[in-house]
Amino acid sequence: MREFFHPDLNDIKVEQVLYALSDPTRLAIVKRLYESGEQSCARFEDLGKKSNLSHHYRTLRECGLIYIRRDGRHSYMTLRQEEMNQRFPGFLESVVKAQ
Amino acid sequence: MREFFHPDLNDIKVEQVLYALSDPTRLAIVKRLYESGEQSCARFEDLGKKSNLSHHYRTLRECGLIYIRRDGRHSYMTLRQEEMNQRFPGFLESVVKAQ
Repeated sequence: MREFFHPDLNDIKVEQVLYALSDPTRLAIVKRLYESGEQSCARFEDLGKKSNLSHHYRTLRECGLIYIRRDGRHSYMTLRQEEMNQRFPGFLESVVKAQ
Repeated sequence: MREFFHPDLNDIKVEQVLYALSDPTRLAIVKRLYESGEQSCARFEDLGKKSNLSHHYRTLRECGLIYIRRDGRHSYMTLRQEEMNQRFPGFLESVVKAQ
């Protein structure tokens, strides 16, 4: 099975990350991952239709915010929190804590 | 002459601010204001066409990032830096410093 592409964070522009986070559903996904660590994609089904969620996962993955791994028929997501914090210090924490 | 509307920052959602900053021209405007304080709108004419810039100023104003005042035939912009920092601590600084 094909593995997902994950960009090197040095190739990422902050504008792409800002855009990815500007959607309420994507921001909700990122907040949960920040609080709870790795989660099965199935864990987010309350946030929208499967097809829409797939699009959101892709946007988050392609801008470097999340890492997705497959395990059999399931996929699991993690926030690339440490890398993101090296690239854009303090940014992710300030966003997930914004009320 | 009609004054501009500026939202109360308590009415602002972080998603709106993230969206406003996800455009490279708007991010460039915000960075200059962060570095240099109040600026005449004329100061940004190198960043694009006047009609496009007007749209960007409006987006930045309506999401609460900037304050615009008129003085005769000119308009001047300031970043609402202190208020933004109270509402979303550390956020604006982390964005303008992101390379």
